[in-house]
Parts: sequence; C-alpha cells; structure tokens
Amino acid sequence: MGVTGVRKPVQVKRPDKVVTLNIVVDAFVDLPSNMKGSHLSRNVEVIGEIVDESVREPVSSIEDLTLQICRSLLERHEYASFSEARTVADYFLERKTPLGKRSLEGYKIFASAQIRKGEELNAERRIGVEVVGMTACPCAMETIKDDLSAQVENLPIITHNQRNRTIVEMDVPNGFDIEAEDLIEVVESAMSSPTFEILKRKDEAEVVRRAHENPKFVEDVVRDILSAILDKYSDFPDDASVRVRSESEESIHKHNAFAERDTTFGELRL
Amino acid sequence: MGVTGVRKPVQVKRPDKVVTLNIVVDAFVDLPSNMKGSHLSRNVEVIGEIVDESVREPVSSIEDLTLQICRSLLERHEYASFSEARTVADYFLERKTPLGKRSLEGYKIFASAQIRKGEELNAERRIGVEVVGMTACPCAMETIKDDLSAQVENLPIITHNQRNRTIVEMDVPNGFDIEAEDLIEVVESAMSSPTFEILKRKDEAEVVRRAHENPKFVEDVVRDILSAILDKYSDFPDDASVRVRSESEESIHKHNAFAERDTTFGELRL
Amino acid sequence: MGVTGVRKPVQVKRPDKVVTLNIVVDAFVDLPSNMKGSHLSRNVEVIGEIVDESVREPVSSIEDLTLQICRSLLERHEYASFSEARTVADYFLERKTPLGKRSLEGYKIFASAQIRKGEELNAERRIGVEVVGMTACPCAMETIKDDLSAQVENLPIITHNQRNRTIVEMDVPNGFDIEAEDLIEVVESAMSSPTFEILKRKDEAEVVRRAHENPKFVEDVVRDILSAILDKYSDFPDDASVRVRSESEESIHKHNAFAERDTTFGELRL
Amino acid sequence: MGVTGVRKPVQVKRPDKVVTLNIVVDAFVDLPSNMKGSHLSRNVEVIGEIVDESVREPVSSIEDLTLQICRSLLERHEYASFSEARTVADYFLERKTPLGKRSLEGYKIFASAQIRKGEELNAERRIGVEVVGMTACPCAMETIKDDLSAQVENLPIITHNQRNRTIVEMDVPNGFDIEAEDLIEVVESAMSSPTFEILKRKDEAEVVRRAHENPKFVEDVVRDILSAILDKYSDFPDDASVRVRSESEESIHKHNAFAERDTTFGELRL
Repeated sequence: MGVTGVRKPVQVKRPDKVVTLNIVVDAFVDLPSNMKGSHLSRNVEVIGEIVDESVREPVSSIEDLTLQICRSLLERHEYASFSEARTVADYFLERKTPLGKRSLEGYKIFASAQIRKGEELNAERRIGVEVVGMTACPCAMETIKDDLSAQVENLPIITHNQRNRTIVEMDVPNGFDIEAEDLIEVVESAMSSPTFEILKRKDEAEVVRRAHENPKFVEDVVRDILSAILDKYSDFPDDASVRVRSESEESIHKHNAFAERDTTFGELRL
Repeated sequence: MGVTGVRKPVQVKRPDKVVTLNIVVDAFVDLPSNMKGSHLSRNVEVIGEIVDESVREPVSSIEDLTLQICRSLLERHEYASFSEARTVADYFLERKTPLGKRSLEGYKIFASAQIRKGEELNAERRIGVEVVGMTACPCAMETIKDDLSAQVENLPIITHNQRNRTIVEMDVPNGFDIEAEDLIEVVESAMSSPTFEILKRKDEAEVVRRAHENPKFVEDVVRDILSAILDKYSDFPDDASVRVRSESEESIHKHNAFAERDTTFGELRL
Repeated sequence: MGVTGVRKPVQVKRPDKVVTLNIVVDAFVDLPSNMKGSHLSRNVEVIGEIVDESVREPVSSIEDLTLQICRSLLERHEYASFSEARTVADYFLERKTPLGKRSLEGYKIFASAQIRKGEELNAERRIGVEVVGMTACPCAMETIKDDLSAQVENLPIITHNQRNRTIVEMDVPNGFDIEAEDLIEVVESAMSSPTFEILKRKDEAEVVRRAHENPKFVEDVVRDILSAILDKYSDFPDDASVRVRSESEESIHKHNAFAERDTTFGELRL
Repeated sequence: MGVTGVRKPVQVKRPDKVVTLNIVVDAFVDLPSNMKGSHLSRNVEVIGEIVDESVREPVSSIEDLTLQICRSLLERHEYASFSEARTVADYFLERKTPLGKRSLEGYKIFASAQIRKGEELNAERRIGVEVVGMTACPCAMETIKDDLSAQVENLPIITHNQRNRTIVEMDVPNGFDIEAEDLIEVVESAMSSPTFEILKRKDEAEVVRRAHENPKFVEDVVRDILSAILDKYSDFPDDASVRVRSESEESIHKHNAFAERDTTFGELRL
C-alpha cells in the first residue's frame, strides 16, 4: 500500500559529470491486518528527502536511490515488515552511427528494490532498460529470395522492417552490480540494427543495409540477448532471474509481434 | 512468442440478447529451442476464425472465447507445448442511481487462459474486471471533525474524494464459473460509492452523501473486496489465486494512492 | 463548456446489417456570461437518449448521431446559442489481401458537428478517419541503388519501411454526404501499401514487394490524398476545408516523420 | 513537414542556477510544391546542435530555444518559406503548503514559434503551461446545504471534489515576455485549491477546507484565469490570443467536465 506516480528531478553521478534525471517513483510498504490506514505522506517525504539530499551529494545510480528509499520506508513506517520501491527515468547516451557521427539517443532505465524487516542486507534489487531499435523480417526476405533469379546472389533482399521495443529486467544479486549502459549495449547488439536520431544519407543507407544483413524475428532478439547476458554475467548465481520482452511494431500488420522469456541463470545454463 | 494488439468485434451471448464486444487479443505459443521462427500468421488466423464463427453462433463469454483460442493455437502449432491467450474488452451494464434512474455504465473485462499440451482439460483460466468508482478519505475527515465543535454530531464532514480505479483478477478453477457482472458488483460495493454517468441534482447530492458516510482508504477497498470474494466463492480451492489493485487519483495530490494484494483463497482462509 | 469522454455502445445501420459501435463522445454548449453554471447532466442525458433510441431505430451514421446530439443540446440548454459534439469510434472493414484472402481490418472514424441557434440548418459537419498502413522510404532506396552495380536493373531495392498513421478530417458541406469507407480507401491507396492482419507467406512477400515498388515520403502521402479527394469530391464548394496529417513511425529513428496540410478546396483548385 | 517526438535533455538558465529539462520537440518547414522530398535529418541536426550548445551556454528559456530552432530551420532548408517548432517539458517548482512546508511540485510547460522567411523579426511565439490542481463542485454543495438544517451556518458543506487539469496557451507579442512561473501561479490561484505532493495531517485538512470555501465549476476556473491574465498583461495588444482549457476528472462520474475559451485580448476587453 503506498503511492504511485511521484515525479521528481534527481541528481545522479556519472563517471565524468552529474546529470539530472526526471524519475517517476512508486513506493510501498505492507500494513499489519490490525491497522486501518497507513501514513502515505511518509512515503512521499522519504522520496523528497532523498531527492533533496542528491542536490548536495548526487546519488550514484537510480538503483542506489531506490534501495535508499526502501530502507527509509522501513524506518519511517515502524509497523511495516516489508517495503518496495520502483523507479523509471528517461536516459540519454551518446552513440556513434555506422559512419562515425555522434548522435544522442534516448532510452528508459528501471530500478526496483524490496526489503524485509530484519533482512535489510538481503535486499532484492532489479534493474532494467527499454531500448528502441529495428528488426528486419527473415521470413519475408526468404520468400522473396526464392522468387528471384540466381543473379541476385550477394545482393540485399527486400523485406519488411520496423521499430522494435525491447525490455530487459534482471535481478542484481547481492555483491554484484550491473551498469544500465551495459544492458543497453547488449540489447542494441541483438537487434537487426540500433536506430539513430541523426542519419545523413550515407549513414541512413548503411543502417538499412546492416539491418538487412542481420534479419531477426522477435524470438531471435530474445534468444540473443539471453545468450549475451549469460556470457557477460557468467558468475551470477543460478537463482538470479531475468526477463526479456521484445515487441516489433510490424510494418505490414496493424498488430505487433511479441516474444518473451522469463527465466533464471540456472535454466539458461541447462 | 506471438502477437499482441489484435482488434476484432465479436458476438457474445447475454441472457436476453446478443452484444458486440470490441476485443483486443494477445495470443502466444512456446517455441522449441531447435526451431528458428514460428508462424505468427496462424495466431491471427485462429483469432479470426473464432470471431467469424461467433457471427453464426455467438460465444458464451470472452472467457470461453479465450479458451477456444488457446485450444486452436495448440492444434495449429503442432510443435508447441504451451499456448496462452489474453483478452480485454469494454463492457456496459445498466445501473440504478440512488434515486432509481437508469444509467448505462462502462467497465473493462479481462479474460486469459493457458494450456499445456496433453493437459487440455486443465486449462488455467483467469477473469478480471476494471471498475471506476469513488473514494472519500477517512483521514482528512477525522482531522477536520476533531477541529469542529460538538454541534456537528451527525452532520456529514467534508473531506477530499476522488476517482478510484480498481482491478480484480482471479483464477477460475476447473468446474467453476465466474460472472464478470458479479465481480463488478463486488468492487462497486467496496468503494465509498459507485459513480454514474447521469445524475440530476438530487441524485448527485445523494451520491456525495453516501460517499461521505462510507469513507475508504485504498487498502480498505482491497480488504473489503477480498472479504466479499471469499464469501461469494466459498467453495473455491485453496490454491485459487486472486489479485486486487486499487488506485485513488487523489484530489489533493498530483500522485495516486495505491494498494495491492496478490493472494490465494488458502491464505485468505487463515 | 460540457463533458468529455462519455462512452456508449450505439446501433448503426450499414447497407446490409446493423453494427454496434463503441463511441466516445464530447458534447459542449456555450454559456451566457451572466450565468454561473450550466447543467452538464443534460449533455449526458441527451447522449444517453439518442443512444437508447438507436436500439429501436439504429442511427444511419455517427455523423448523423453527432448532429442529433447537437440539436438536442440546443433545445435542452435554452440559454445556449451554440452547441458542439465530437465522436470517435473503432470501425472494422473487410479487406482483400493481394492474393485475395479476406482480412478484417480496424480503423478509427471521427465525426463532429457545430450548430448556432437560429441557424440549425447550417450545421457545420466534419468527418474523419484514421488509417494505419505502411510507407517505404524513397530516399534510402535511391542512395542504396546508386551504390549497387547496374545488374540490379528491375530488381527491388531495400529500404527502411514502417507503420504509418494517417488522419484525414474534412468538412461535409450542406447538401453533400461523405462515406467514411470512401475516405479510408483514399488513404490506403495513397500509402506505399495497406497493411493486413492476416498474411500467409506469399501474401506477405507480395505486400512487401508492392510497398517497395511504391516508395513514399509522408509528404507524398499527404499530397496524393489531397489530389484524390479533390477528384472524388469535385463539386464541393471552395470554402470546404480538409486537413491531412501523416506520421511515419520511422524504423531507423526513434522519432517520427510527419507531414500536414490544412487547406480548402479553393486553395487546392488554384 | 518535419519530425515529431525528438527527445533531448537541454540546459536552461534559471535566476539562481542551471537546470536540465528533458524536452520533446516537433520541428517543421514547408516544402515548395515542385520539390519531392525534404531533408528531415537537417531538422534533427538543428535541434541537436542547439541542445549541444546549451551545455556550453545554457539557453535562457524553452521559448528562446524554440525560436532559435525555427531560425536555424529556415537557414538550413534554403527552399522553405516557413518554419515551426513546438516544445514541451516537465518542470518543477518549489511551493509552500498552507502551513508553510516546502513541497516540490511538477508541471508541464510548452513553447512554440513560427517564422516566415523575410519576416524573421516577426516570429509568432506562444507559451503555455499545464497545471494539475483541485476543484470542489458548487452545485452539489448547494443542494446539500438546502437539505440541512439552519444550525450548519458557517460550517463547511460536503461536495464532490477532484483532480483538475488546466492548460493555458497564449501569444507572446513582439517586445513582450511571459514567465511560465507567472502563468502557473495564475492557474493555481483560479482553482478551488492547488495540490501538493507532501501534506501532513493538519496541512491535508487545511487544503480540503480551503477547497470547500472556494468551490468552482470548470467554467469558473476558465473565467477567473482569463480575468487575471487580462489584469497581469494589461498592455498586450488586442490581437494577442489566449486559450484556456480546464478539465475536472469528476469524482462522481466516469467522464470529465470540460470548459474552454479561445479568445483574444481585444474580445476580453469588450
């Protein structure tokens, strides 16, 4: 029981500077069955204080911020045995186009944490990213290729391609850390191509070409992300969970293609 | 892996007539790891055929429709071991205002089903409703009452009140059935007051008065719904699960108040 | 001053049957400056009565329904000198894929009307449609073609393609009528290709091929729609206005490409 | 014809500090009828360069930023005779609750500009704000008061109250400036009460009390804003336009109450 949709600007440390992120926070505690109402204003106070404090001392990440909120919630609601906080923010990274131009790209990053009273060191932390990129369909490409004469050997074959939206969310086991930037890179590498806000003509052609050399179903995107994550975080425990959802806004349909896998490192290792 | 956001009009039988519901369907199957891509067009075909068939023979409910889609998905994707379908639709019911006027009110109804190959009779079915109503805050009311002189005994005390949006989703165990109308009634009874599209002045005053005689926190709404559900479906098995989420769009804040409980009949019986 | 977001199911006559449309209605009147508040419940009553009446006698179109609401609003609010109503509904049409399969496709249709007291016969009526289709980019295609050797003469060249969302809204002059179906057809013909909910492999390839034979910028879509409308409604008066907005959800960018023209038949005839 | 939904973080000067605003920009130019396609990448380049420049030299406001984008668009698209840019951003201001506590509140601010070639000094600039606050209904209050005995003289009477969302957009005539903060204050003063993210019990009661002492229909909110604007910007020319839209998310209905006035300073002065 708590509050949803609290909007705040917060100061976050990056390696080389301090950035302002506009976060939206949900914050909850449980309520003993013998208590009629809780004091929701405390949830918003906690969020406000931590955000205020970030002006003096920027937080190191929205994961840390989320964890701090969880801890303060438990202290402030002395009757609660459980607290949870969830945060989402727009995030920007500088990217290089195929021909090497700089382009500032937008993403969403997520963090959540849950704590039980008495087990404050065992917080359950999760981190996530939403990345918009591009998929080109392998199926239409193959059908069209079969129809064309042999002469097209080595030529790129037309197919439908579209905006793809992929979300990864995973546990951050105790003693480990995950950088949102790394997850964003994993996702972009698994798509037919990343997308860019600025593309001059040669760059535009190159992005199209690469996407067509790398056609992907949504289920390929999911599979390739999971495989890269298993590689990258090879020392994560078996019970760490990870969920990947990829949705292609099909250019040839009015509906979307969708694939999801909600699994654990243990299952991935089988 | 499948399709999301497929929109169709479907004919549904009601006790006294046939109504058209505009449904949005998501439909998925799993994919063996040795298969590269599935045939998503089959998912949309299945949905289309069942909707077409409903013109000749209206379906009995969106729960049944969802289950039929699941079964056809497994037949059509011979390699799949699992299928899932989810449906949402706008739904309208005639209501009586406090003074007895008829008013047509809008709701959302949900249905989902999952089947594993070889266990077709053990489908996991869920049904849900979203209801918009009204809550009046007990806390502000009490603070204000304390400030007023004794003379106000029995007079309604001002407080903030607001639109509340509550969602119930629950398992439909095998051998049982749940009517969406019943769930809608359970939810409306648990709010400070239902809301109505048409209210002449006397009716408007009466709705306001009733809401103030019945102040509720979001956590009260959740608790009262669970208690009514336990009563109404008293023969449901212990492992049947139910989730209630209630969100009040607080008139005095820019954020929302939120309560949720995700539990089972077994836990509720403790 | 009025109400927004009133949801109702309404019975509408089609050439061969009666369909149920779920409409969302906004309804307004003006208020003389010496009046403090109007009686908003009358707006919702008017909508409710016309919708109820449609059960006995289906309305002929949402344009007519919108006009009826406007007239009743003026009667019921005797102090008002002006009324306005706006309606939007999901709408479905059966389409044929390139290879001749039937596919039920979803659209949005809009209608609005405004009346001034004493000029009830001079209602300003507008109608509109929103169509989702597909555009393939001519620019990337040309750049890529320039890079490829001469041998590719007559072969389809890859490019980025994507979901396109186009809205047309136009005046319906007194004495004329416009069928939403006709506007939908005009829009679909102006895109690189219409899109379809069900496409088996051969059909999918054919849609992709046609889109690549017919590359379009958003500004081409707008221009071609205006030209077709000028042809189709050639006897419309010069002061009839029309607005076309086309947005391509670019597969290679995170932002959209957008073109709009808000013009009159007179300007188009210059 | 241009781009919509370009997201960027931009550095903006405030009296006492530099803040980062996450802006969403739409940017357009016209296209001579003899040109087939324009170079949309230039629009995004222009936005990117101005945002980059803001890191070195923060922009003075999003109005200025929008105007700069317009000017660069005309320079970069040498064939265009017209350019337009529109910007929206989340914005935060520190407020004091009735009992004097600080609370950081969120708003939206808008800016747009249009320029014609050769008339660069005559830019049409507009600025706007969206404010969420609270309205309490005068009508239900009056009906209920009539029903209660005389003893309640001077006691606050219950009524329905709810979240209200009000948008003001107005011209910024050449030679004048408008501070978004001022518009936000005008709007908050015209509601039954502003709302606050943090309210301890006494403050909560006070906000409720003030809202009930100050009941407002949406049309009152619109009227009071226009009157305050006419006062505050008393030297604005007659042709400067202003539009106010106020929407109350009625706690007793599922639909909203809405009032709008789109007028000019000249009309307001009549």
